[in-house]
Amino acid sequence: MENLKAEDSLKSPRFNGIKTFMRMQNSRELENVDFAIVGIPFDTGASYRVGTRFGPTAIREMSCLAAKPYNPVLNVDIFGACNGVDYGDVSNIPGYIEESFDLIQADMQKIFKAGVIPVAMGGDHSVTLPELRACATVHGPVALIHFDAHYDTIPEYFGKPYNHGTPFHHAAIEGLVETSSSIHIGIREGLYSSADAKHSEELGYQCIPAHIMHEMKNSEVIEAIKKRVGDKKAFLTFDIDFLDPAYAPGTGTPVPGGFSTADALAIIRGLKDLNIVGYDIVEVSQPYDHAQITSIAAAGIMQEFLSHIAYRKMIEKNS
Amino acid sequence: MENLKAEDSLKSPRFNGIKTFMRMQNSRELENVDFAIVGIPFDTGASYRVGTRFGPTAIREMSCLAAKPYNPVLNVDIFGACNGVDYGDVSNIPGYIEESFDLIQADMQKIFKAGVIPVAMGGDHSVTLPELRACATVHGPVALIHFDAHYDTIPEYFGKPYNHGTPFHHAAIEGLVETSSSIHIGIREGLYSSADAKHSEELGYQCIPAHIMHEMKNSEVIEAIKKRVGDKKAFLTFDIDFLDPAYAPGTGTPVPGGFSTADALAIIRGLKDLNIVGYDIVEVSQPYDHAQITSIAAAGIMQEFLSHIAYRKMIEKNS
Amino acid sequence: MENLKAEDSLKSPRFNGIKTFMRMQNSRELENVDFAIVGIPFDTGASYRVGTRFGPTAIREMSCLAAKPYNPVLNVDIFGACNGVDYGDVSNIPGYIEESFDLIQADMQKIFKAGVIPVAMGGDHSVTLPELRACATVHGPVALIHFDAHYDTIPEYFGKPYNHGTPFHHAAIEGLVETSSSIHIGIREGLYSSADAKHSEELGYQCIPAHIMHEMKNSEVIEAIKKRVGDKKAFLTFDIDFLDPAYAPGTGTPVPGGFSTADALAIIRGLKDLNIVGYDIVEVSQPYDHAQITSIAAAGIMQEFLSHIAYRKMIEKNS
Amino acid sequence: MENLKAEDSLKSPRFNGIKTFMRMQNSRELENVDFAIVGIPFDTGASYRVGTRFGPTAIREMSCLAAKPYNPVLNVDIFGACNGVDYGDVSNIPGYIEESFDLIQADMQKIFKAGVIPVAMGGDHSVTLPELRACATVHGPVALIHFDAHYDTIPEYFGKPYNHGTPFHHAAIEGLVETSSSIHIGIREGLYSSADAKHSEELGYQCIPAHIMHEMKNSEVIEAIKKRVGDKKAFLTFDIDFLDPAYAPGTGTPVPGGFSTADALAIIRGLKDLNIVGYDIVEVSQPYDHAQITSIAAAGIMQEFLSHIAYRKMIEKNS
Amino acid sequence: MENLKAEDSLKSPRFNGIKTFMRMQNSRELENVDFAIVGIPFDTGASYRVGTRFGPTAIREMSCLAAKPYNPVLNVDIFGACNGVDYGDVSNIPGYIEESFDLIQADMQKIFKAGVIPVAMGGDHSVTLPELRACATVHGPVALIHFDAHYDTIPEYFGKPYNHGTPFHHAAIEGLVETSSSIHIGIREGLYSSADAKHSEELGYQCIPAHIMHEMKNSEVIEAIKKRVGDKKAFLTFDIDFLDPAYAPGTGTPVPGGFSTADALAIIRGLKDLNIVGYDIVEVSQPYDHAQITSIAAAGIMQEFLSHIAYRKMIEKNS
Amino acid sequence: MENLKAEDSLKSPRFNGIKTFMRMQNSRELENVDFAIVGIPFDTGASYRVGTRFGPTAIREMSCLAAKPYNPVLNVDIFGACNGVDYGDVSNIPGYIEESFDLIQADMQKIFKAGVIPVAMGGDHSVTLPELRACATVHGPVALIHFDAHYDTIPEYFGKPYNHGTPFHHAAIEGLVETSSSIHIGIREGLYSSADAKHSEELGYQCIPAHIMHEMKNSEVIEAIKKRVGDKKAFLTFDIDFLDPAYAPGTGTPVPGGFSTADALAIIRGLKDLNIVGYDIVEVSQPYDHAQITSIAAAGIMQEFLSHIAYRKMIEKNS
Repeated sequence: MENLKAEDSLKSPRFNGIKTFMRMQNSRELENVDFAIVGIPFDTGASYRVGTRFGPTAIREMSCLAAKPYNPVLNVDIFGACNGVDYGDVSNIPGYIEESFDLIQADMQKIFKAGVIPVAMGGDHSVTLPELRACATVHGPVALIHFDAHYDTIPEYFGKPYNHGTPFHHAAIEGLVETSSSIHIGIREGLYSSADAKHSEELGYQCIPAHIMHEMKNSEVIEAIKKRVGDKKAFLTFDIDFLDPAYAPGTGTPVPGGFSTADALAIIRGLKDLNIVGYDIVEVSQPYDHAQITSIAAAGIMQEFLSHIAYRKMIEKNS
Repeated sequence: MENLKAEDSLKSPRFNGIKTFMRMQNSRELENVDFAIVGIPFDTGASYRVGTRFGPTAIREMSCLAAKPYNPVLNVDIFGACNGVDYGDVSNIPGYIEESFDLIQADMQKIFKAGVIPVAMGGDHSVTLPELRACATVHGPVALIHFDAHYDTIPEYFGKPYNHGTPFHHAAIEGLVETSSSIHIGIREGLYSSADAKHSEELGYQCIPAHIMHEMKNSEVIEAIKKRVGDKKAFLTFDIDFLDPAYAPGTGTPVPGGFSTADALAIIRGLKDLNIVGYDIVEVSQPYDHAQITSIAAAGIMQEFLSHIAYRKMIEKNS
Repeated sequence: MENLKAEDSLKSPRFNGIKTFMRMQNSRELENVDFAIVGIPFDTGASYRVGTRFGPTAIREMSCLAAKPYNPVLNVDIFGACNGVDYGDVSNIPGYIEESFDLIQADMQKIFKAGVIPVAMGGDHSVTLPELRACATVHGPVALIHFDAHYDTIPEYFGKPYNHGTPFHHAAIEGLVETSSSIHIGIREGLYSSADAKHSEELGYQCIPAHIMHEMKNSEVIEAIKKRVGDKKAFLTFDIDFLDPAYAPGTGTPVPGGFSTADALAIIRGLKDLNIVGYDIVEVSQPYDHAQITSIAAAGIMQEFLSHIAYRKMIEKNS
Repeated sequence: MENLKAEDSLKSPRFNGIKTFMRMQNSRELENVDFAIVGIPFDTGASYRVGTRFGPTAIREMSCLAAKPYNPVLNVDIFGACNGVDYGDVSNIPGYIEESFDLIQADMQKIFKAGVIPVAMGGDHSVTLPELRACATVHGPVALIHFDAHYDTIPEYFGKPYNHGTPFHHAAIEGLVETSSSIHIGIREGLYSSADAKHSEELGYQCIPAHIMHEMKNSEVIEAIKKRVGDKKAFLTFDIDFLDPAYAPGTGTPVPGGFSTADALAIIRGLKDLNIVGYDIVEVSQPYDHAQITSIAAAGIMQEFLSHIAYRKMIEKNS
Repeated sequence: MENLKAEDSLKSPRFNGIKTFMRMQNSRELENVDFAIVGIPFDTGASYRVGTRFGPTAIREMSCLAAKPYNPVLNVDIFGACNGVDYGDVSNIPGYIEESFDLIQADMQKIFKAGVIPVAMGGDHSVTLPELRACATVHGPVALIHFDAHYDTIPEYFGKPYNHGTPFHHAAIEGLVETSSSIHIGIREGLYSSADAKHSEELGYQCIPAHIMHEMKNSEVIEAIKKRVGDKKAFLTFDIDFLDPAYAPGTGTPVPGGFSTADALAIIRGLKDLNIVGYDIVEVSQPYDHAQITSIAAAGIMQEFLSHIAYRKMIEKNS
Repeated sequence: MENLKAEDSLKSPRFNGIKTFMRMQNSRELENVDFAIVGIPFDTGASYRVGTRFGPTAIREMSCLAAKPYNPVLNVDIFGACNGVDYGDVSNIPGYIEESFDLIQADMQKIFKAGVIPVAMGGDHSVTLPELRACATVHGPVALIHFDAHYDTIPEYFGKPYNHGTPFHHAAIEGLVETSSSIHIGIREGLYSSADAKHSEELGYQCIPAHIMHEMKNSEVIEAIKKRVGDKKAFLTFDIDFLDPAYAPGTGTPVPGGFSTADALAIIRGLKDLNIVGYDIVEVSQPYDHAQITSIAAAGIMQEFLSHIAYRKMIEKNS
């Protein structure tokens, strides 16, 4: 499979055409591919506002504006350094969580097995659990780099194990992540009780809560993450509500007091040398996203993910 | 239980106070009560847009503006003729359909058993199935008066029995409704195949599709419904997408070519003499409801439901 | 004062320039002028949603799109047949009703005294009372042609005489209108009690309620109004909530079951021969007016008012 | 080329996947194809509001909800009766009208030449001129069936020949349409002068203006169109502002007093037997389209276009 | 009065039920109560955008998402440490400022007299004057901690003493606040003249204007406030326009160049040891609050107020 | 020409009246005038979202709220220190770039020639080219102070020289700016290739990219600009997308990772001593500007521009 170039926006206007991510080719071919954009339009796990099922469509549309191939800060040309496809969306059954988890896992597993790095777009945060299940079958337990306003480590809600508040409890219990190398970044939700934070700790996760992080420099946050993860294989999951509602209004459970997109971009950029085998960005909810600013932020963050992959590919080629 | 008057809006502004339906009392007491407003904020059954879980809150808020106690067309004073409460919302577990159906049925059953007429607010249309299950335990199979753009008689979606496109297949199969007295009004959805319409017919339902109804007078529609239902106990279910998207933008699966709110009000008003034992209005989706016009329409329609109840109570008293 | 032509939209794009009504000249000169557009950005009289203080600005902006000088149905060229100005906005003090009424009356009186026909834009419906006070000083009691979803004849709210639900009680009591020639058109609000409708009747007003009007042809409505008003001097007041919320979402107290803009335009057009000495359009609320459709409807209706004036001027010239 | 079926929405949720029209295949292959959906995201010709460059994307997204393959009124199964593709968007250069016209014409010509019926989505109404230029090279002058609030027959604007108010002047002058068989339906714009309407007449067009059409039955309108067009080859162009702003807020130059979507659907359906060789729908402007109701209406109307094609194909097969 | 626990959101979804603040009990009982949430839906004092009359409803709705009982930064469990009620809304008469002030004062006085700490939600900022009048009757003159973009110390507007730009002139003049212990924080409005700032100074207030505060650390701001207030009884009033319009678009008179919600939360948290006897948050305007981000920010800030109260209660118990 | 005072907002509410910038007089008289506000409602040069043709109207409306005459930080009274007018909008032909450039240049030239400092409001960024052409005829080549997320130095798009991504290539090539004294501030767009940044450098521009600027203090940025510009005549152009999309959602090509309005205000304020002969602010797009926050930010920034002019006038008078 050659010549997987995206369409040239200096020749055809960026608003033209069927909306794939960054105008890339829509293909399920995985051979010779370095990364695959994949949508997971599933929001049955949402506990408050819904609508993240339209997240992948919303992000794809704005990626045509927001995401361009050359990253001047890292000096990488994404499509020059590597091949990527827009894999489309994975299957799921709205209203049926466990069946959908199986379908999501099956599709993600194909991607991981092909040696391709998935860059997934939720959907609500519950989808990261089947992603990690798929990931573990290929890579074993991974370090989790988790940007979020919430721990998402509650064992159960309303007597049920699965929703978007519980994935990292189950990921730990199921042995999908190595919690001793894993870290939550930006947590600031109010809690139901002091036990909530303690439970995450007991599972083995480290946490940089927002009120402390607001006093740190971005470079210190980067160092803390790098130190925690080391050279372990890692999975980076980015809940868009890490950002303040001003920057990401279009999300399901916004929490005031968050971070700017500039902070997010700088921190992610600083993680380019880590050995990240999978990425996702979740909780972008189109119906609440006036002027599409949340989708634009998400597309910008995903461009940094792709820049990571291209950067490491370039390093690899040059070494 | 006496003196269940709603707050007086000539003394306290209508935007004042905690938002119950029409500023009625929030109470679970059912003794001496004629009707109970009840919210069913459940949208896990939605196949496209979501957000009807915020329907009850949205309708309650606008009911304080839209719904006033005296109906000059029917010449009834709702709170003069009968007692009502805002029962609050029934329990449910977002993301878990069958468990939620059980919880919804349990709460609805209490209302039916107390001899109270429920006026329920969805939620997506899947909630009418557990409502009808509750209804049948008290009233046996009822005639269904079904305003909608969709048949909602598909047997299954994605291999699963329950979602908002399937309730009236199951209601028929489970014997909750007497299809030979039941009628769909306003159907106009495109179909997947000709079998879809046929299936509804095979279940025994009658149908007035939109393209025929647009050629009929409201009085003819009223007559057709009355003729079909006769003096059977009936359940009236109103999917807000019966209205054209211009009148009800805030809904999950809008279909162009629908009806005006004036038509809906006139037709419903014409059914005041029927023996209706339960009502619901479903599919009001707040995130898409600019300027709250869908909630306002829903509140206005519900005021007609309450006027029905008051009217029949008045007739009963006077006879 | 000559050459009061509006800017030519075939030469300069309609979105260009400071926004006056229909790109007319902004002037307080009233000599040689036939009509004056005048804004009354006052909404302290609103009982529910507010924001009509931005009505005049919103309507002016959209009038540049919606309102063009030649009316092909009546075959009149507005600026060919008469002179008009955009008088700007009248003074008022937000938060102080009675003081504002005095200021509004003073400005309106100047217009009436100059023999100019005012075409006012509210503001909430309370502003029609000081308009009528001004009108009466020049023209004596007039016939009221009142398009609305509400009677607006409540004597008092919360123990206070003035708000947007009370103007036509006071207008009758103060002798500003001749109720025996006056008529409400389109009323459909729910009421607090049966006394509400009766009070309007006792004041002497006639009423065509919505549920009856929906069964009438537009030509029958026109005939009923013309018969009621006869050749009396009349004041036409148009509350935008006469229209259904689908057509006029941007308003303070929307009532479902209303009329289309096409109906409104046809009926108004039919009144061109009446002796109307003043017009207003009220209750356009910008913050709720998505895609500006309410402002567009209002500007379209105002173009019919101007066409009336031009039509009668033309008749007068030719006779 | 076989098996051009769209994705099955009973197996995969309608919100899943890259958004092509009705989930059809995105392909530029025209062999064995009956119709081609084609986007023309060009709005440089707009004189007031802009944003129709996002029309094709907006309609594609909602077509996945709104448009289903079986049309129960005409009893046709679109994908059963014929083959179609989503051709994607044609080239254009934002900001450069004449160059874009050439690019649009070139792409459209390929479709017409392949014997395929194009169903185009604008873009502003200026794009119909290059479409008709392409059409004429294959089909010669055609009858124009033109639904709109505006004549669009102004010779020039600001001294320039091309914008969205001028296409049907040029189409007549260039001999692309046979005006003696052509008809405007629904016109209701205010005019700059009486000459505007006269100019359309002088070009040879017939017109059913809105104020007359509001007094006609849909069946009478259908008859008038059929009589005018006869068995000539025809091109149907539908400006979404034919609909009232309540039904189509998301458009560039909305005019109050328009028609309902139900009227539009019924009238179009009645034209199924005409010999229509090309269709377009224009002026859907995403930034103003709250709750996507304009896009939904547009997708519904396009489903009727496809039903036409399938209906005639079926007739042809059976004869 | 015992067991005033709010509903448990791990058992019943947060979007369920009638919307009281944080799902607390709606009650006017004040015995054994530590704090009372109270709405003041009054916006007749607004000089520009209106709509804050819907502030209490909007904040209550989002508090169910945003505000959770355990504050991990201060390590307090709000409902564990103290008892609270949602008192509902106080009476007022829209359109009548002075009468409304009397009604507001009367209700607030009951709360202060019962020894309960009110946490009020406006309404526009004019409501703080009657709150302070009530406060002074119980606590005498208090130190004012005033977060805002505006001084709100103008003596009169349009010749009238009361609106939302004047409360702290009157509070000083009436002796309700001890200006020598009082402080404005975050002021950045443009002024009508240099006299405006000088007048506040002459009244005795201290001020940290925005352009200086942007150069300070949050800890320095906290120290400045604590130093100014000392151990005086204080009233904290938070105008949501202290936040930048990006963080609080839903407000009446937004001023660019403001602060983030994270800054606000950190500074307020730092004031936990002050002797604050009353709190309010004002100027949340629902009609302008896309995606409800202003309401969410307000609810988050109010959770810090409740955490203050719980924290001091805990300290008190433990000492 | 004397007494060019704007209307007094303590006497007449700020929402009253025809909307000119800051309620100034609308006049084309330039004698005795220090600055002229001028709208350039042209967006044919936009490559993605459109709608900036409504920028001047949107900014004028919000300037009545946001911009007040006295700047307390610089201690200047704008209308006390100098005379200004709202010149209205310059001519242009939507859809025709080169013809519009000529019209824009002609109008701007009149202003520059009269010795008046223009403060222009776009429109898309392409309009700065004809502004600079006009400027050069009077002032010769100027230093460019360019706030933006984009370089805007691409030589051509789609084979065409002019659009909003190309003005500063042409300005350099045409000798309108002295690139050796010119500087881009805040650039952060992704690029099509590494050549893009290099091209700007080759033209002679200096650049402070966003990722570096986020590590600098505002005072350091100010120093860098002042050092680059020195005492050269300068033109300051501010693309609103310099701000993060959270602060300026209403723009055509938003880029995440930008700056706050507080940063922008502080940096601009720091440039007050530079010899700036012209200003513009561009790319405010009304259709995407929820709650008008972008217009408010733009009006606030423009108030700093006017404060510059007043400050320098005051210095000049006092020296």
